[in-house]
Amino acid sequence: MIRLYDFELSGNCYKVRLLLSLLGLEWEPVTVDLMHGEERTAEFLRLNPRAQVPVLSDDDLVIWDSQAILVYLARRYGDASWLPEQAAPLAAVQQWLAVAGNEVLYGLARTRAIVKFRRPGDLDDCRAMGARALDLLENHLDTHDWLALERRTVADVACYPYVALAGEGGFDLQTRPAIRRWMARVCNLPGYVTMPGLYTEPA
Amino acid sequence: MIRLYDFELSGNCYKVRLLLSLLGLEWEPVTVDLMHGEERTAEFLRLNPRAQVPVLSDDDLVIWDSQAILVYLARRYGDASWLPEQAAPLAAVQQWLAVAGNEVLYGLARTRAIVKFRRPGDLDDCRAMGARALDLLENHLDTHDWLALERRTVADVACYPYVALAGEGGFDLQTRPAIRRWMARVCNLPGYVTMPGLYTEPA
Repeated sequence: MIRLYDFELSGNCYKVRLLLSLLGLEWEPVTVDLMHGEERTAEFLRLNPRAQVPVLSDDDLVIWDSQAILVYLARRYGDASWLPEQAAPLAAVQQWLAVAGNEVLYGLARTRAIVKFRRPGDLDDCRAMGARALDLLENHLDTHDWLALERRTVADVACYPYVALAGEGGFDLQTRPAIRRWMARVCNLPGYVTMPGLYTEPA
Repeated sequence: MIRLYDFELSGNCYKVRLLLSLLGLEWEPVTVDLMHGEERTAEFLRLNPRAQVPVLSDDDLVIWDSQAILVYLARRYGDASWLPEQAAPLAAVQQWLAVAGNEVLYGLARTRAIVKFRRPGDLDDCRAMGARALDLLENHLDTHDWLALERRTVADVACYPYVALAGEGGFDLQTRPAIRRWMARVCNLPGYVTMPGLYTEPA
């Protein structure tokens, strides 16, 4: 039985919900209300000492960190098309998992958290890093359909949520045509699900 | 032929030098002088658009991101004891690779960069996150010999450098006995190499 400790408006939780759906897996949500600090209860800290959602449990196994959860689900329930086994393509995926946990998180996700949820942080710094994240992705996607390989992998699932939510932080995706084409490709994957606030193409 | 685009005082470069040595690999350094901005030349940006060392090349393959390089080297030249193939242990390693790229980088490495290299940044924020990184590691290592599994993995190699360099940022490792025992275990690994500024046990 897969349980996801989940908060609907968290892009990191959505990332896991998206892969669960793309893999066609059954799961059960356990809502952790970040607006009321439920990630800081003693019970939750035993699951994740970082005091963050998402956390995934699969029977007795508990995994924290959204990128680690993607790696787990892909290797356990997916095939190597989502997470390769060989060194070179695995490292290519790992590079973009790192971007998801670095520029995308500290730039795009933090900016959104400050603007949308009034979380503390240096808005100018976060905006500058978010712009660097979008530049990095736009330049890469200008000549590649997917981030890591010639097909969708967990790297795309890891980076997509906070890019598609970047508008909530004030970033303009209209000036990023390669990112928008890539987001459309993600939306067309079988099993795709959405979340509130995501970018959608203007009619 | 393995080439490492390297800067001696970078903990992220040392991380790769350490695994190269633990795996007994031959390699050739290419020094990138961060003190003179050599990571921003057009030539280097073609290797790594993030403008960071380390970058590793192995014949025609180029990999950026220090955690991705560890994953590459372990899968290509190591065995599964360094980077497991099964989902659950692989995810356990991935969790601590995430900590290396998040709390350890934004807390411990950034604090050191501000203090030692006068880089810009919010020292109070970085110090607070660095303390959280050390708390997370100390609590875990109080009941575990190694970070991810019952043996050394790339997770230990990923987290070790900026923990062992934390003193250069003003953090006190004397009050962290479990971390110090773990660092001693790392130092005793066959093939261990050091770098300038690393914590060593008082005589």
